[in-house]
Amino acid sequence: MKTLNDYIEKLNSLNFKEMYNDDFFLTWDKSDDSIEALFTVADALRYMRENNISTKVFESGLGISIFRDNSTRTRFSFASACNLLGLEVQDLDEGKSQIAHGETVRETANMISFMADVIGIRDDMYIGKGHTYMQEVSQSVQDGNKDGVLEQRPTLVNLQCDIDHPTQSMADMLHIIHEFGGVENLKGKKIAMSWAYSPSYGKPLSVPQGIVGLMTRFGMDVVLAHPEGYEIMSEVEEVARANAEKSGGSFTKTNDMAEAFKDADIVYPKSWAPFIAMEKRTDLYANNDFDGIKALEKELLKQNAEHKDWECTEELMKLTKDGKALYMHCLPADISGVSCKEGEVAATVFDRYRTPLYKEASYKPYIIAAMIFLAKFENPQAILLALEKEAKARKHE
Amino acid sequence: MKTLNDYIEKLNSLNFKEMYNDDFFLTWDKSDDSIEALFTVADALRYMRENNISTKVFESGLGISIFRDNSTRTRFSFASACNLLGLEVQDLDEGKSQIAHGETVRETANMISFMADVIGIRDDMYIGKGHTYMQEVSQSVQDGNKDGVLEQRPTLVNLQCDIDHPTQSMADMLHIIHEFGGVENLKGKKIAMSWAYSPSYGKPLSVPQGIVGLMTRFGMDVVLAHPEGYEIMSEVEEVARANAEKSGGSFTKTNDMAEAFKDADIVYPKSWAPFIAMEKRTDLYANNDFDGIKALEKELLKQNAEHKDWECTEELMKLTKDGKALYMHCLPADISGVSCKEGEVAATVFDRYRTPLYKEASYKPYIIAAMIFLAKFENPQAILLALEKEAKARKHE
Amino acid sequence: MKTLNDYIEKLNSLNFKEMYNDDFFLTWDKSDDSIEALFTVADALRYMRENNISTKVFESGLGISIFRDNSTRTRFSFASACNLLGLEVQDLDEGKSQIAHGETVRETANMISFMADVIGIRDDMYIGKGHTYMQEVSQSVQDGNKDGVLEQRPTLVNLQCDIDHPTQSMADMLHIIHEFGGVENLKGKKIAMSWAYSPSYGKPLSVPQGIVGLMTRFGMDVVLAHPEGYEIMSEVEEVARANAEKSGGSFTKTNDMAEAFKDADIVYPKSWAPFIAMEKRTDLYANNDFDGIKALEKELLKQNAEHKDWECTEELMKLTKDGKALYMHCLPADISGVSCKEGEVAATVFDRYRTPLYKEASYKPYIIAAMIFLAKFENPQAILLALEKEAKARKHE
Repeated sequence: MKTLNDYIEKLNSLNFKEMYNDDFFLTWDKSDDSIEALFTVADALRYMRENNISTKVFESGLGISIFRDNSTRTRFSFASACNLLGLEVQDLDEGKSQIAHGETVRETANMISFMADVIGIRDDMYIGKGHTYMQEVSQSVQDGNKDGVLEQRPTLVNLQCDIDHPTQSMADMLHIIHEFGGVENLKGKKIAMSWAYSPSYGKPLSVPQGIVGLMTRFGMDVVLAHPEGYEIMSEVEEVARANAEKSGGSFTKTNDMAEAFKDADIVYPKSWAPFIAMEKRTDLYANNDFDGIKALEKELLKQNAEHKDWECTEELMKLTKDGKALYMHCLPADISGVSCKEGEVAATVFDRYRTPLYKEASYKPYIIAAMIFLAKFENPQAILLALEKEAKARKHE
Repeated sequence: MKTLNDYIEKLNSLNFKEMYNDDFFLTWDKSDDSIEALFTVADALRYMRENNISTKVFESGLGISIFRDNSTRTRFSFASACNLLGLEVQDLDEGKSQIAHGETVRETANMISFMADVIGIRDDMYIGKGHTYMQEVSQSVQDGNKDGVLEQRPTLVNLQCDIDHPTQSMADMLHIIHEFGGVENLKGKKIAMSWAYSPSYGKPLSVPQGIVGLMTRFGMDVVLAHPEGYEIMSEVEEVARANAEKSGGSFTKTNDMAEAFKDADIVYPKSWAPFIAMEKRTDLYANNDFDGIKALEKELLKQNAEHKDWECTEELMKLTKDGKALYMHCLPADISGVSCKEGEVAATVFDRYRTPLYKEASYKPYIIAAMIFLAKFENPQAILLALEKEAKARKHE
Repeated sequence: MKTLNDYIEKLNSLNFKEMYNDDFFLTWDKSDDSIEALFTVADALRYMRENNISTKVFESGLGISIFRDNSTRTRFSFASACNLLGLEVQDLDEGKSQIAHGETVRETANMISFMADVIGIRDDMYIGKGHTYMQEVSQSVQDGNKDGVLEQRPTLVNLQCDIDHPTQSMADMLHIIHEFGGVENLKGKKIAMSWAYSPSYGKPLSVPQGIVGLMTRFGMDVVLAHPEGYEIMSEVEEVARANAEKSGGSFTKTNDMAEAFKDADIVYPKSWAPFIAMEKRTDLYANNDFDGIKALEKELLKQNAEHKDWECTEELMKLTKDGKALYMHCLPADISGVSCKEGEVAATVFDRYRTPLYKEASYKPYIIAAMIFLAKFENPQAILLALEKEAKARKHE
């Protein structure tokens, strides 16, 4: 697309009403049209920024972030998205707050939201917790808005939960769309979402789950590969299967990395923890069973170590389509001989794909901004048009 | 009031000149007209936000926050207020700063204030410290401004000190005004500021002190109730007594919670530490007497535990006016059976008042914004009028 | 200068093209014209702020800060500068990030910079590290920009490295220029950059190095005084020598504080660690030799203690020009009898110069803003003119 009008016309052809005044939890909650509208708005916002047109739709307002795990790229992506739209980020640092002193989720959610237009949450550590927590926060501020406590309904954006990582998978998909020259070129393409060895244990499942839950919607052949015992949530596999059927693609599973890589157009090798082990860990934490946690950790590291051959090597890459599959990763990767002795990917492979990997990541701020934009404006086309007409420079010129 | 003009006319009838270019330490420093002007500006700003009119009076400028104790709601209220007016919050995290390495208060105050329009401080831990510290900061930046170091005089807003908690008591009062349909309806109403049991010790005195120091100015019958030994600062009692006399209300004390609740229109049951014990603790900290602190803590918890019957139960609520007094709390509350085994309030009472409690809290950002607004603009009426005329949308439309 | 036009005409007479789209690492990388342009823009921005003219040249955009050491004044100066220009500060708190988990500098630099217009870094702890790190960050984001990952090239501003402290020395110099009524009055003036005793060890060398590396460019007689064994980097001494020769001033060294102070127009007494010891410490840290570090610390404190007579006393001040030399310090100072028992400066001397010291510090936000401004705008004169014409109020009026 070359002009803003192209994006607007695209939006005119889509039905994404459900997005307005709603949250973004899981990609499979949303219709195909909504997903396409999101990509379109993300591209439109990027187009405008590249052309130095301000997209500041808020004169004031807060974007609240709650990170229950360390984060660099998601933290900065959320901050960038808020800033792009005119919202100021205010981080709820639970260590500095009084939350431990007896505040309920419902109370805290309202207390921080008096001027919040969006709340971004990352809570991916414990199975069955993150998504539930986000829903509770959302319900609380919806009630607050209905009861006259909050003047606006803050939109919730899932910045990674125990089930899905929609800002990651959507950014990944937008990267694929651009690399392959359009969503219409993806039918029949093969993508391998593969487990890979890492010397650390307990990496979240939300990335592989997010990938198979989203990528199966575009008519691609999605292969999920992992050693036996590294199964993901069965509910998400169900989602992937249903998606594939509907989109005319396929969703298959294998315990053989080479098979997954064979003729693949795209490979996404990444470590994760077995779902069952993560469930166990969640229970151990719930019972403060620290000996149990230690034992589990040891066991998992040992289990991982049995699969050191699950590394994205040059040899494996040669099996892919013309030996040139698009290599993807959510970063940071465990690079063999660089960030660890043995890891997810060979250094030469990683190096060759560095620039596309960074580009992949660069879509995340725009995806988050598009999620906010569609949740806040009933007629985003009119807003985009108005912004273009105002033609306020992002940077003075 | 229905139009912005109503607020402006109200302001035209009041003399609040003292507010301009000054700080906000204690409510009883300010005239009745100034207090009323603050409520009026707070309501006007809320009216404008609700009508999507931007109140961004600063194109740039910083709002500095210094929190010497954990805080959620006050932190977010200050951030919201600054954001509403166009100031960016910059937190002085004393842990990350070089303050310990020999900087004086005078020096630090100036070094952080080159572009600060407001400084918000919470320092409520030690008797005789917080208020004094705030005065020192204020004097330092006033000198800095006079000496040509600072181009503007940063306004100091007391976000809670050892004596008063004006942003809390003012927000509470604005809530009462709205609940009772106007300040003119408060004469003769009975409000019970009552101690309540909490399993934690050492809760600040600034809330009860702030409440009796402010609520006595509106012709209400203010009752301060607590067990023997839980006296507040005698200076503040003096303020309350003088206020009541002037306003035609009353200020009485009792050691009987039921007596306080009897026929009360408003109840505010909340735990605090005895003033004398807090003085003692301050001395112990000054002497690094950690054994003494431990002993005091134990003693205070034991003393508290003798008064577990000071709980805001359904039975007590039935004694209030028509059994329907407005229940208030600064939050978070110690809710029996929820956040602790035995606490300040029964769960059913708290639950019934959840929405009004959240509304009560929702006034704080506007109160803080109004404090900044009146300190920064000599003719706030003209500014409000200009903002209405510009009619810039807070959120694009 | 009295009007904005005076500053613009000054800029018209200078060639500072090299500043556009570049970083600021070391003052001696930059031409005399560029240095003068920086002072001019800093003064122009201050003039505009004092006259309530908004200098917000960015509608959105981030200013990233990375502080690898505690900081108050530099942190707030950077935040003030960004805010003045319309950029929102986002701090990379390495403790909260995933950097330790295997991210490279190149990767992190790109991941935080998708919407970053400037990156400010303070990294002054280890010899041979800070400057190198900044160069690596800069190269990474330049590559990212070239490769299409970043839409803009973030400018790097050195907020203190192991070699230079340009925002400090430039602010110091702008203070001198204003105190002496213009840069043209500095020829032949004597400035003593002198070591002084401090009970702490390991203070960074970047201040004395920055001072002699910059002040020698204005025809002044620059004297570097320190006890034997407290030598600074020889490369910087070389820079100072070459500067002095070119500017018609002089650069001399002495081991006698009194000799340095004799007839000095300006004195800058400040503690620092011997370069050789800092090199040693860097190696010890590299080898995790904590016993070695402890031993070195002990040795350095003992060495310092042999030079307690290196204190800026009233007696020494009497030796200066008319006994009235301008006393300077980057703050916080070790004040004898105030922040320590024996320190860098007598309390009475410090007290007499408090206001000029605070003014000295007040130039730093403007210097940083000018560095950003000149890196971002090819024709800053046109931008300044446009801002004056728009005449948007910084604070509503």
